[in-house]
Amino acid sequence: MGEFELIRRFFDRPVRRSPLGVGDDCALLAPQPGMQLAVSSDMLVEGRHFLSTVDPRRLGHKALAVNLSDLAACGARPLAFSLSLALPHADPHWLAPFAEGLFALAEAHDCELVGGDTTRGPLCIAITVYGEVPAGQALLRSGARAGDDLWVSGTLGDARLALEIFRGRAQATAEVFVAARARMEQPEPRVSLGQALRGVATSAIDVSDGLLGDLAHVLDRSGVGASVDAPSAAGLLAAARAGYTAPAPQILELVLAGGDDYELAFTAPPAARQSVEEAGARTGTPVTRIGRVEAEPGLRVLDANGGLVPRSFAGFDHFA
Amino acid sequence: MGEFELIRRFFDRPVRRSPLGVGDDCALLAPQPGMQLAVSSDMLVEGRHFLSTVDPRRLGHKALAVNLSDLAACGARPLAFSLSLALPHADPHWLAPFAEGLFALAEAHDCELVGGDTTRGPLCIAITVYGEVPAGQALLRSGARAGDDLWVSGTLGDARLALEIFRGRAQATAEVFVAARARMEQPEPRVSLGQALRGVATSAIDVSDGLLGDLAHVLDRSGVGASVDAPSAAGLLAAARAGYTAPAPQILELVLAGGDDYELAFTAPPAARQSVEEAGARTGTPVTRIGRVEAEPGLRVLDANGGLVPRSFAGFDHFA
Repeated sequence: MGEFELIRRFFDRPVRRSPLGVGDDCALLAPQPGMQLAVSSDMLVEGRHFLSTVDPRRLGHKALAVNLSDLAACGARPLAFSLSLALPHADPHWLAPFAEGLFALAEAHDCELVGGDTTRGPLCIAITVYGEVPAGQALLRSGARAGDDLWVSGTLGDARLALEIFRGRAQATAEVFVAARARMEQPEPRVSLGQALRGVATSAIDVSDGLLGDLAHVLDRSGVGASVDAPSAAGLLAAARAGYTAPAPQILELVLAGGDDYELAFTAPPAARQSVEEAGARTGTPVTRIGRVEAEPGLRVLDANGGLVPRSFAGFDHFA
Repeated sequence: MGEFELIRRFFDRPVRRSPLGVGDDCALLAPQPGMQLAVSSDMLVEGRHFLSTVDPRRLGHKALAVNLSDLAACGARPLAFSLSLALPHADPHWLAPFAEGLFALAEAHDCELVGGDTTRGPLCIAITVYGEVPAGQALLRSGARAGDDLWVSGTLGDARLALEIFRGRAQATAEVFVAARARMEQPEPRVSLGQALRGVATSAIDVSDGLLGDLAHVLDRSGVGASVDAPSAAGLLAAARAGYTAPAPQILELVLAGGDDYELAFTAPPAARQSVEEAGARTGTPVTRIGRVEAEPGLRVLDANGGLVPRSFAGFDHFA
């Protein structure tokens, strides 16, 4: 199977919305008048972002999911994506389920493949997603203000728990492991919630490298600090709700520094609490208030009595 | 040096035109009213698209050049690009010249870096470029019509000659080798010519996998055939003009199937000959008429007497 047959067989699907899709030198996108185009790129490398044993269907899903999660964090509506793929060999038994997982998620979000590149090389998946957002309404990292509440969607830490179980550093029941593994391998980007938070949230980011590390980017760009309530945060590990037990500091570390969560962390003024709850309810997304933005720089984790919880964990850094 | 310092140090430059650049979950682009957004992605893998010994400055140039070449083939004006980079390690002695070559070309085309991703992994460079083109005016592969002339810009085959010299399969003087190597390592995308050909050319493609292979895509999508004049084509190898000698069939193969040229191959009606020449002159780009589009399907190479030149060479295919 040659390069062009590979593309034709697995990746060339007609476009419904874009003026031009796969098969020319460029694809063409036509955002609606008044819209800005939001673009984001994420690259996944074997052994770094996924294990070589991963189900290709789940990998196809995840490769797009982590990109859609960036659109979600900006409040953008997905339009299309490009896929650049380096493959050690053209194996239909891998490509078919990979494409199936990829397109299932793409169709669920009405996000069409418009182009990309295919080459031989160590397995590497580079996706760029395109979305649209009304001009001036994108959720940015720079909008958090002292006094805002700090919120997160869904649950946190379960993907990292699955990784720790794979590494033999944690143990759990089969039920807990299966659920945590699904979180690691098939994250659900919070696309609807992101759009529902336009005009409500003051800032947003998607949690990919660990909540505290990602939050630090928001605080840095917004010129503020924040405190996180440890008891609220500790309740966010789904596995703990399902019976997984570990010392409290380990649970907290999974939640605050786990990474690979693809939930949204966002800020909103206290006056918007009801709007945030409604946005969550309307999109079927749990939302939890876990702290507040403060004028004092830095990021503090506080126990139930308002005392500082010592912490040593940091966000994920590919080169640290 | 961590991931975020690496980005800050080498890749975070202020944007002048885009509403939002590097540093948030998404970048924001705002094409002018009436414009469509042209997007294209190309991935370069070490050992496949470049040698590990390549000067990183030239590699930075080439990684963007091959993407700009796709915008050129659509007649789009460059706006911005995203860079996803997998690196074995964060080496400033490699990153500094890589960024220098990349940004020198970017600035020459007023194309700003707006985002991307950085991770550890086998060296792999995935770029997506964004350009704008007036709605309905993009040059497509599908517009060639029987009777059109077939044109190419610049010279062809020199990049492949350099590769053959590297592989020990060809020999040349130092002067010829240096020039051919520059063609391989620092192609100049025909961005101005592409834009000048809007409304003049009926179809266009950039020559990356070899002229005949790329031309076949145009013929396929346009539902036509073509014949190429071997004597006109043979004159396109710059090295031959500089004294490189080889049997005529080898010269012809370099030109017709070399690859890595990043010239434009395009079609235009005979009535537009003067307009094509003017577009070339205005943008300082040599243009050569090398054949014609015909109703009869297939691609024929003809000698000076109109006889068929037998050929065995094919375009480059990463999985063939």
